[in-house]
Amino acid sequence: MKSNQIKELKKRLLEIAHLASISRLLNWDQEINLPAKGADYRAASISELSAILHTKLLNLDTDNLLTKLKKEVDSQKIRGKEAIIINETWRTFDRERKLPEDFVRELAEVSSKAQTVWIEARKKNDFSMFLPWLTKIVKLKRKETEYVGYTVSPYDALLDQYEPGMTTAEVSKTLDNLKVFLVPFLKQIRDSKQKINSKALNGKFPIDKQVEFNKKILAKIGFDFDAGRLDASVHPFADGLHPHDVRITSRYALNDIFYSVSSTIHEAGHALYEQGLPVEHFGTPLAESVSLGIHESQSRFWENMIGKSLSFWKYFYPSLRKDFPESFTKLSTDDFYKAINKVEPSLIRTEADEVTYNLHIILRFEIEKGMIEGTINLKDLPKIWNSKMKEYFGIEVPTDSLGVLQDVHWSGGGIGYFPTYTLGNLYSAQFYQAMKKDIPDLPKKVAEGNFIVIREWLRKKIHVSGKTYTAESLVKKITGENLDSKYFTEYLTEKYTKIYNL
Amino acid sequence: MKSNQIKELKKRLLEIAHLASISRLLNWDQEINLPAKGADYRAASISELSAILHTKLLNLDTDNLLTKLKKEVDSQKIRGKEAIIINETWRTFDRERKLPEDFVRELAEVSSKAQTVWIEARKKNDFSMFLPWLTKIVKLKRKETEYVGYTVSPYDALLDQYEPGMTTAEVSKTLDNLKVFLVPFLKQIRDSKQKINSKALNGKFPIDKQVEFNKKILAKIGFDFDAGRLDASVHPFADGLHPHDVRITSRYALNDIFYSVSSTIHEAGHALYEQGLPVEHFGTPLAESVSLGIHESQSRFWENMIGKSLSFWKYFYPSLRKDFPESFTKLSTDDFYKAINKVEPSLIRTEADEVTYNLHIILRFEIEKGMIEGTINLKDLPKIWNSKMKEYFGIEVPTDSLGVLQDVHWSGGGIGYFPTYTLGNLYSAQFYQAMKKDIPDLPKKVAEGNFIVIREWLRKKIHVSGKTYTAESLVKKITGENLDSKYFTEYLTEKYTKIYNL
Repeated sequence: MKSNQIKELKKRLLEIAHLASISRLLNWDQEINLPAKGADYRAASISELSAILHTKLLNLDTDNLLTKLKKEVDSQKIRGKEAIIINETWRTFDRERKLPEDFVRELAEVSSKAQTVWIEARKKNDFSMFLPWLTKIVKLKRKETEYVGYTVSPYDALLDQYEPGMTTAEVSKTLDNLKVFLVPFLKQIRDSKQKINSKALNGKFPIDKQVEFNKKILAKIGFDFDAGRLDASVHPFADGLHPHDVRITSRYALNDIFYSVSSTIHEAGHALYEQGLPVEHFGTPLAESVSLGIHESQSRFWENMIGKSLSFWKYFYPSLRKDFPESFTKLSTDDFYKAINKVEPSLIRTEADEVTYNLHIILRFEIEKGMIEGTINLKDLPKIWNSKMKEYFGIEVPTDSLGVLQDVHWSGGGIGYFPTYTLGNLYSAQFYQAMKKDIPDLPKKVAEGNFIVIREWLRKKIHVSGKTYTAESLVKKITGENLDSKYFTEYLTEKYTKIYNL
Repeated sequence: MKSNQIKELKKRLLEIAHLASISRLLNWDQEINLPAKGADYRAASISELSAILHTKLLNLDTDNLLTKLKKEVDSQKIRGKEAIIINETWRTFDRERKLPEDFVRELAEVSSKAQTVWIEARKKNDFSMFLPWLTKIVKLKRKETEYVGYTVSPYDALLDQYEPGMTTAEVSKTLDNLKVFLVPFLKQIRDSKQKINSKALNGKFPIDKQVEFNKKILAKIGFDFDAGRLDASVHPFADGLHPHDVRITSRYALNDIFYSVSSTIHEAGHALYEQGLPVEHFGTPLAESVSLGIHESQSRFWENMIGKSLSFWKYFYPSLRKDFPESFTKLSTDDFYKAINKVEPSLIRTEADEVTYNLHIILRFEIEKGMIEGTINLKDLPKIWNSKMKEYFGIEVPTDSLGVLQDVHWSGGGIGYFPTYTLGNLYSAQFYQAMKKDIPDLPKKVAEGNFIVIREWLRKKIHVSGKTYTAESLVKKITGENLDSKYFTEYLTEKYTKIYNL
């Protein structure tokens, strides 16, 4: 009887997983293939599917199926993997049932249209064009926090969706601590006599040759092209439709190959996680990622700890030189390494170095917390943004396209998402420490091009477990400790002390 | 009350249209983007969506909504556009309700997997690999004819889905008549002393330059790139997801640019129809094509009557020469025209000339009629195929890839589809005759590059009406007569008498 109920639950979950995967395809296609005039109809299609998904989620509890199973788990009659499936499904269901169908439909449709408007507004550098849509989004997201409920800040209700168990207060504390380290550390670097010439990276790199080089890296670090693909888009992203269909995008600049390489490695980190989820559990939380923060730990780990390490380029630089001899013959591996790690306050988050990156997140977190808590007037957003950029980075924002309009998140309704980037950085440094203990001579292995040992460690320690552990318990299990930002600050200190002779 | 009911019907129809459009996207993506390992999960996704679509179709009659409205139409209380919407929806619903949900799901899943197998089997030239899947498909399609019902031949039940109102007996008669004309006409051509050198078309055409040339043609004949796109696939196809999102594919051969050009123009004919459907009626039969035969009349019209006419190349040949001077500088427009119209029995349907093309259809129709009526043993298919090729074309089939495995239709469950190709040819010739009466100096206009006058005629006479008229009544309305194959045979006679000095 009980096993029949679990079988029925899994059946319903699998249907939902397929629909969710289709929904992601609609979004992916919108970014990559959709003709201009198709935006409105696509928004309607996405909204239609969201409504069906919503109904299917609610139907998980038809005949009280889920309620009954949850009781069995709570009374410890069901344990182990099945308990995880039921608990995690309950979490999702419990949030979903609080949202009325009309609301879900409206949010999906508004987000889809707002993304199209955002692309135009960014192109035209016109915040006023985007403002009415952002206003709609924020209003809907505040409504969502009321539906979902919260005890302290309404922002908690949004954050919890991306980083289960994390609170606004904890994030505030963590980010404040980080600021206390970052500001003087950045000052030290800026005062250093060691100047790095990142112009050395500039050249002329035909896009098709860049694509080939990016694919070479992807194949080498273990991305499975039979279970995924690489495309181009304005804002790079990774989309795991299924462990056998993981799609990433990169972006290309003719004069700078590292612009695409760093994006590609970042998204590959996400992709390796998605490809590493246990396909036999597809449809259940056992084949889903732990949280966005843990997801980001994978992308940031590959992008920074590996992709911006000297060992990585000891292996790949000869190949880069061979493909682009005009640009790199005269540049030493060491100078290349320094150039790609130059620290410099800059306007664009996704192009920021490892040291300043989290200041971008702190800025966004403060602003979106204010948007949701209602302490910020949306029409003042460019002004607020620009003044914080001045305060934290010491730089002026010349246009909104390079400021408040730069990120896709808000247009897509993704408020509460940004802090997970910084959490990802912190997790990644702590995992890296544990990995170095487990794998002797890690830098040497990387320099020899043995990346599979890394992928397998991550797969075994993180990917294959799906949602078996929470972020908190996973960190504890792997590293023996709770999340501690000291691993990240130690990592930065060690790396940049050498680079900048601090 | 009545208007509320119609409003409710339209709402339900719009939901269905969005899901159908999503389903087409899944198929399109499968052909264009899906990684190899994704085939199984994609099949499951498609099957999931088919089941939902099926349920939604049946739900059209929740509270007897559709039954009530149909009664109002039958008693002439509802007329005009609304009556058309209700009648056509009833037709679809009535077929759908006869099919059990499990059957629909199974057919969708089997078809999706069979297509993947077919691609492999064709590549490996291995019919035995495809046979078990074809067997499943035919068994399911025969089951479908029993569910749907028929009076004379089970094949009627399949044909009716693609060409409403047409019967197996009528098709048999029409195709037999055509054979009576084609066989002696082909003999006349083969006996002609006029020999055409189609090798003159061979050259070396970089694919990216071919794509550009194809796009040039598409833009000129009125394909809207803001509402559609062109990609590449093994088997070219057109997919109208929505009037604002119409996707076509072409195929490319390095040594022959006309190979892609003729495909592109053919698919463009389909695409112009889809882009011309009245977007304001999206979701209702008023924004759907009349039938596959009428759809094919549009593609064949553009491909042959226009795209293989001397006037067309008077306009485009200078541009082709400019883009590919090495191949065409020495070839006159007239010799180019003759080369692209060379008549020659050949193995591949999609590469056949206008004269032999319908013999390919006759062969397929006879075989699939036999498959469905149960008079053919599927394992004998290659033998039967090859002996008919010998009988009708006088040629040997060297491999199954170039024979029975060449077409995608059967693997996708599209049995009953082939005859609509020939019907399309017949319709197109009859429409062409009417167009020439309406538009003075048509060849001159084409030679001047004025294609929009053609697109507008087709749009006004055919596209904007959606399903307002049946194929039969549309032909009558536009040409004043019933469908008559004499227009097609006259067209062939006039054109090829000149080319072959008959």
